[in-house]
Amino acid sequence: MKKVREECGVFGIWGAKKKDAARLTYYALFALQHRGQESCGIAVCKTAEKGEKLKSHRAVGLVPEVFTAEQLEKLGNAQCAVGHVRYSAAGSGDVEYAQPLVVRHMQGSMAVAHNGNIANARALRRHFEENGGIFHGTSDAEVISYAVIQARREAGTLERAVEQAMYKLERAYSLVILSPEKLIAVRDPNGFRPLCMGKMADGAVVFASESCALDSVGAEFIRDVKPGEIVVASDEGITSIETHCGGKGTLCVFEFVYFARPDSVIEDASVHEARQRAGAYLALEHPIQADVVIGVPDSGLDAALGYARQSGIPYGVGFIKNRYIGRSFIQPTENQRKDTVQIKLSVIKSVVDGKRVIIIDDSIVRGTTSARIVRLLREAGAKSVHLLVSSPPFRYPCYFGTDIDSREHLIAHRLSSEEEIAKEIGVDSLGYLSVDNVVKIAKNANCGFCSGCFTGEYPIPVLQETER
Amino acid sequence: MKKVREECGVFGIWGAKKKDAARLTYYALFALQHRGQESCGIAVCKTAEKGEKLKSHRAVGLVPEVFTAEQLEKLGNAQCAVGHVRYSAAGSGDVEYAQPLVVRHMQGSMAVAHNGNIANARALRRHFEENGGIFHGTSDAEVISYAVIQARREAGTLERAVEQAMYKLERAYSLVILSPEKLIAVRDPNGFRPLCMGKMADGAVVFASESCALDSVGAEFIRDVKPGEIVVASDEGITSIETHCGGKGTLCVFEFVYFARPDSVIEDASVHEARQRAGAYLALEHPIQADVVIGVPDSGLDAALGYARQSGIPYGVGFIKNRYIGRSFIQPTENQRKDTVQIKLSVIKSVVDGKRVIIIDDSIVRGTTSARIVRLLREAGAKSVHLLVSSPPFRYPCYFGTDIDSREHLIAHRLSSEEEIAKEIGVDSLGYLSVDNVVKIAKNANCGFCSGCFTGEYPIPVLQETER
Amino acid sequence: MKKVREECGVFGIWGAKKKDAARLTYYALFALQHRGQESCGIAVCKTAEKGEKLKSHRAVGLVPEVFTAEQLEKLGNAQCAVGHVRYSAAGSGDVEYAQPLVVRHMQGSMAVAHNGNIANARALRRHFEENGGIFHGTSDAEVISYAVIQARREAGTLERAVEQAMYKLERAYSLVILSPEKLIAVRDPNGFRPLCMGKMADGAVVFASESCALDSVGAEFIRDVKPGEIVVASDEGITSIETHCGGKGTLCVFEFVYFARPDSVIEDASVHEARQRAGAYLALEHPIQADVVIGVPDSGLDAALGYARQSGIPYGVGFIKNRYIGRSFIQPTENQRKDTVQIKLSVIKSVVDGKRVIIIDDSIVRGTTSARIVRLLREAGAKSVHLLVSSPPFRYPCYFGTDIDSREHLIAHRLSSEEEIAKEIGVDSLGYLSVDNVVKIAKNANCGFCSGCFTGEYPIPVLQETER
Amino acid sequence: MKKVREECGVFGIWGAKKKDAARLTYYALFALQHRGQESCGIAVCKTAEKGEKLKSHRAVGLVPEVFTAEQLEKLGNAQCAVGHVRYSAAGSGDVEYAQPLVVRHMQGSMAVAHNGNIANARALRRHFEENGGIFHGTSDAEVISYAVIQARREAGTLERAVEQAMYKLERAYSLVILSPEKLIAVRDPNGFRPLCMGKMADGAVVFASESCALDSVGAEFIRDVKPGEIVVASDEGITSIETHCGGKGTLCVFEFVYFARPDSVIEDASVHEARQRAGAYLALEHPIQADVVIGVPDSGLDAALGYARQSGIPYGVGFIKNRYIGRSFIQPTENQRKDTVQIKLSVIKSVVDGKRVIIIDDSIVRGTTSARIVRLLREAGAKSVHLLVSSPPFRYPCYFGTDIDSREHLIAHRLSSEEEIAKEIGVDSLGYLSVDNVVKIAKNANCGFCSGCFTGEYPIPVLQETER
Repeated sequence: MKKVREECGVFGIWGAKKKDAARLTYYALFALQHRGQESCGIAVCKTAEKGEKLKSHRAVGLVPEVFTAEQLEKLGNAQCAVGHVRYSAAGSGDVEYAQPLVVRHMQGSMAVAHNGNIANARALRRHFEENGGIFHGTSDAEVISYAVIQARREAGTLERAVEQAMYKLERAYSLVILSPEKLIAVRDPNGFRPLCMGKMADGAVVFASESCALDSVGAEFIRDVKPGEIVVASDEGITSIETHCGGKGTLCVFEFVYFARPDSVIEDASVHEARQRAGAYLALEHPIQADVVIGVPDSGLDAALGYARQSGIPYGVGFIKNRYIGRSFIQPTENQRKDTVQIKLSVIKSVVDGKRVIIIDDSIVRGTTSARIVRLLREAGAKSVHLLVSSPPFRYPCYFGTDIDSREHLIAHRLSSEEEIAKEIGVDSLGYLSVDNVVKIAKNANCGFCSGCFTGEYPIPVLQETER
Repeated sequence: MKKVREECGVFGIWGAKKKDAARLTYYALFALQHRGQESCGIAVCKTAEKGEKLKSHRAVGLVPEVFTAEQLEKLGNAQCAVGHVRYSAAGSGDVEYAQPLVVRHMQGSMAVAHNGNIANARALRRHFEENGGIFHGTSDAEVISYAVIQARREAGTLERAVEQAMYKLERAYSLVILSPEKLIAVRDPNGFRPLCMGKMADGAVVFASESCALDSVGAEFIRDVKPGEIVVASDEGITSIETHCGGKGTLCVFEFVYFARPDSVIEDASVHEARQRAGAYLALEHPIQADVVIGVPDSGLDAALGYARQSGIPYGVGFIKNRYIGRSFIQPTENQRKDTVQIKLSVIKSVVDGKRVIIIDDSIVRGTTSARIVRLLREAGAKSVHLLVSSPPFRYPCYFGTDIDSREHLIAHRLSSEEEIAKEIGVDSLGYLSVDNVVKIAKNANCGFCSGCFTGEYPIPVLQETER
Repeated sequence: MKKVREECGVFGIWGAKKKDAARLTYYALFALQHRGQESCGIAVCKTAEKGEKLKSHRAVGLVPEVFTAEQLEKLGNAQCAVGHVRYSAAGSGDVEYAQPLVVRHMQGSMAVAHNGNIANARALRRHFEENGGIFHGTSDAEVISYAVIQARREAGTLERAVEQAMYKLERAYSLVILSPEKLIAVRDPNGFRPLCMGKMADGAVVFASESCALDSVGAEFIRDVKPGEIVVASDEGITSIETHCGGKGTLCVFEFVYFARPDSVIEDASVHEARQRAGAYLALEHPIQADVVIGVPDSGLDAALGYARQSGIPYGVGFIKNRYIGRSFIQPTENQRKDTVQIKLSVIKSVVDGKRVIIIDDSIVRGTTSARIVRLLREAGAKSVHLLVSSPPFRYPCYFGTDIDSREHLIAHRLSSEEEIAKEIGVDSLGYLSVDNVVKIAKNANCGFCSGCFTGEYPIPVLQETER
Repeated sequence: MKKVREECGVFGIWGAKKKDAARLTYYALFALQHRGQESCGIAVCKTAEKGEKLKSHRAVGLVPEVFTAEQLEKLGNAQCAVGHVRYSAAGSGDVEYAQPLVVRHMQGSMAVAHNGNIANARALRRHFEENGGIFHGTSDAEVISYAVIQARREAGTLERAVEQAMYKLERAYSLVILSPEKLIAVRDPNGFRPLCMGKMADGAVVFASESCALDSVGAEFIRDVKPGEIVVASDEGITSIETHCGGKGTLCVFEFVYFARPDSVIEDASVHEARQRAGAYLALEHPIQADVVIGVPDSGLDAALGYARQSGIPYGVGFIKNRYIGRSFIQPTENQRKDTVQIKLSVIKSVVDGKRVIIIDDSIVRGTTSARIVRLLREAGAKSVHLLVSSPPFRYPCYFGTDIDSREHLIAHRLSSEEEIAKEIGVDSLGYLSVDNVVKIAKNANCGFCSGCFTGEYPIPVLQETER
């Protein structure tokens, strides 16, 4: 089931007095698992003394698979840690892409965990190679490390090196960087990807891609890291460098539509509420006479509830999603009787039989999954099926850390009108949320939004050679 | 999170012309996975010729873990198969308990998959042992096998042996039995556990604990196996022995409340609808002034929707359940800062903050999980919390295949009034669905119900020495 | 590299005061690993009290693979145990064949570990099935268990039940049987397979297929169990039933030629010495003018040394055997450049180049491996190659627990003269040890020998329907 | 059983026309497994075209464990490859140390496999770090890669970059380096570690640490790579850079004593013969009246044979070594009855009972293993035990790629006389091979030897800060 994908989640903690930083990071990554299911890793700093060697473990797999009790034990009792979860893309399931990346440099060692996409990674890599640098992989984290460490030679501190490196690194990036002496959290000047900070009862400072990870470790939410801000946590306390700050930011609107967990709060806006509001806007934009509104699990459920409340049409639970599918699940092959959609998603016949049904999904990529879902509903007796999408159609690439399908596969690029799309998918009618409204769903959010994948208009100039 | 547990799910198929019986059973067991997550197994009959040796594989783990592509390959191209999933109880995670049990006997071989609880298993085992029988384990399936094979010496056919054995076997049991010549499905005369039959497009006959497994293999639902009925599928067609039939049956009402999957239909009643109706009855029995109704995922959601519709109070999504917990997840130990409930279940603050909240759960066992959930809601700002339960209080043991906690742990047994329970759990009010109404939730169902765990009144006399 | 195979090794211990019976059995099985590499298992009795349930674990794999520290821990602190290793035959790598077999019966439970082959297993199984018995597998251990437990109904004790069962069980068998009250060791009246007993410093009694296992746990060798003897170890001490004793026994001579470990002593004869003596007899029977005598590792080395000493021709180390091959080693396929023999065995060129070489192997089955070894020697420059075999040619089946290849594959059955065999293998000359001398190699051994696989004359009548 | 350890083995192949380079490397590494059992890896170049990305896999474990059929498949059909096996040292069992190291640089990518020890690695690392370089680990291979790639900026070709880097890299190193355009083999100017080249029937060029790896892939031995030589294999043929050549070399003499496989030929001398000659020299230096000479398996066997032949005292097989010990074997803990030596090594009583025994081992490190072996012999009845060692006593560190124990643990450092050592070990007499003779054991070898670990006199000045 092809989806648009977030590229990662990060977490960092400094000063866990009970020395359970590794275990807390484990629970935090578990809460961030929805942001990346391919690989994960944790790097710890035990004594927080200069010259200490960071310990780390990273591997392909889900958090509970990679970190067994024994493996977690090996990381030891540590006060500080950073962690990372990585998304799943075909063919890149290699441990070499797993983060945090741990490197040794002149001043000691450093662990880097990155969420985003360095637009000029290729040019920077070429630049470092021309100076005799060698690369072990193709991850942005390695390019970022080089940029920071090169700057470190002139800069007096690691955070000043980060400040300098930011002049070179084209966004998008939300980073946590751990050294034996401090934990640094950085968000690019546009703030494309979220990053927030919190505090534990024992005074430990934590950073996370989403506030749900703060909740999972019992930390109190303090605030979002500002676009362009460098926050430094050390035994001396918390300081901030705001050289690169100033703009209001252009957060990826898809964080609200699909990526983030509903219980997270980003830029003071509830993700769950944003999705309900998306549904309410859909009801206003696309009023339909129907008997029941159902969401495609899981991300369409909130918008369906919002549509139902706004429209007065009953909200129904139309699908059961099988939760037991894991990496080893044997997909049906083409010449078999079943397809994966059907095995993963079952229709509750009594909810749709003989009814006019509105289904709400968060997005359409290729359209093939939607078509199969619609067929399931019709087979279960739905009299008519109307598909509403709680975001505008994808028509353009994302250069800032989202993995959308290649353009020629996008149904909204391939077909020119909503009527054609509706016909191919097999629905009675089709409606998207408008670009005007999608940026309004996060009520009172303290930021602007990037909606370049819908409009082709990006908040910063896009490099031709960007690696995506 | 201590729950009442179903003891198993079974599936059988005869006559898959494409010889994909093993793979179809894989998908069917995957659909029945909610009925048992401890172990699973498949036995196949390749050629369906007399004297053929059945092949089987069973192991501890989820269906996609136990059956890799390689393992499924080893079972080969078969036209007939039976499968089984087993529930998870502490300490019994042993492959020796996994089913189907495959045994050799005088006439050939036989595979048995069982859902239920043989009340007089201990007495029967003693009887067979006195005749020199040996047992490899303590499963009911082995006792059933002995009973059938002992009867087989006199009976002309396997189904007649089953018919005779039924005079000895105290219910509850829903069975599928595979021999190289036929597939037999049996339901005890009370029909405590569900069992239905369906047909594939190529004529293959299938049996399953729930209709959702029929859907998952693309089979058409035909009908439920009747209480007491023995259905025989072979290359000669389908025949039925109704010697033990007659009663209307007393299906376990908890199949509708919690065990079965919402998209299943049992005795012509939709499980999803039954749960919604339970919620509606709760609204009638326990009218409360509140701002939002939320269900405890996943089994409380349908009842919450039913309550909301009946009462007019808005339905809300109050919890996010983390789906990535697997068998290897490291549970927080006692002296750590977090508990498992909190890691598995997150509250969406914006939904409950400042509100009067009704939460609906399907049952309360010990009450400790409920207490934690309530604390989470209060920490998130709920002004008041009312807990409604879509079934009556558990006060008595079940002898028919359900694993309820031991009696002294049951909160409704320990405390004498709902006020005391409410106080211990920490809610403003507490309400259970009445016994009168719980048996009405499955509208138009073609059967009676057993509600012995609520009332202590059982449909058949209970043996003192029953093994549970 | 097709070899004749031993069918199993057994071990038992009673009364380990330090409660380390599981761990001692682990080390003993490790010492017996050469007798079976397919699967292994341990069953323990913790408290040695009537009614106790035996605990066990068995699986496919080598001893250190199957028994991890965690798995051994699970068996707990036990005073008594039995263990088993099983040989590797194509296609039977199934955990259901692993022993010890643990069964429950009227009087409690029992674990059985068996080395040998029950000649009338099929008839006995049919007999028990006719009385309504069911079988989970096709192992001899299950048939033995039935025979013993059926007899147990009349017999007053387990050992008397064994005594009765021995009238029914056609040899060959060397057994250890553990109940919560006693440990029983049994050897069939011919004593086809070895079985000895020893004592630990703390008084614990141990039984093992070979004395090397006694050494590995630090036990003192006491004596061999006599052919036909039933030895019972319990907290009351050691007793013996000799009803079935009397004959001198007919030990499988191949135990001395190949199966047993060189450091074992069987029937008072050293296995290592027997192999050297086999080499010396070869020197007397087949005097050859040569420059060096080399053994095919590992089992041919001792005989080569014996030949060298008798003949005066220098003993050389001509082959290096790669020790790292495990179950997962990727065998070269046919159209590749290498064969397995070549990868497993390397010639030391300087030892054979330009020389007349005598190589000594313990047996020839199909002859293909020998042919490849000879080719390796010629490629390394050997001027001439003479192959001597420290046993007579295999011409007949074994019915007593040895897995020889099927008759049509045996080169000595296929070809009628030693000249033809020599030609096919590609050697300048070929010599076998005579039947007259092979039974003399174990100097002063207290037993007679079975050499039926060489002569077709068996010590007891052979059943036509014997399962092998 | 603490041993002196070789640090690695390397292999490279260019131009395998059948595109089976990955599989051939698998077999070659399997033949080199004795040089390193901790981790292993293979990097392949598929098309041998400029700009191609090298594919690689490396992990902790033995060759057959790390490279499953599936994993080998993933590397694909390749014409060129390099491989590496790494030794096992406590605590460093981390995949990050596994080689070949694959890096990207300005001109493309490169895989490096290294055997040896870069004496000035720390200084070089500091130098590169000062220029802003970052390191992922602490392996010499990463330092070598930096040195080569830094030089590559000025040098016109990769081999010229290697030539320049050699001015910076302090020996010892034997390297194979793979780029998409060529395969380079390098040996340091002293030739501390062996490296030879061969040719396949299809013209493919191969390099290996030992000739036994050439044999295992069916390659013909051509010659050793000269000390200081850079050999380049490409589609244009083979070329050689001899700028750093000239010296006769100082091969580590321990390659002949212990490290190399007996069937290997190094610098035209047979390893097996060298060991036999070591035994013969021992017989001349230490004539003893005894009844049997036995070797400690496996590396003492050849020297024992040499002693026996020279002295006329019979050669005996005194020990059986259990081959089934793997990484997961559970070692006996201290308070248990057994020690590992006893479990791994069994004495054949009949060979030593009542006899005056000479045992020969290749070296003594701490002396504890020797003491246990001697005790085993005495318990088996040896009348007297004389221990001869086929090398001189270890008294000094090795800086050139051998992992000797830390100096304070060395028995020959701790105790000042052979009498004291003999007493501690418990032998009647003790004798070492003299330094004068150990360098003569490889008859006619075309090289000088380093015997610094015995004498403290090293062939090149030793850096104080050398990392070992």
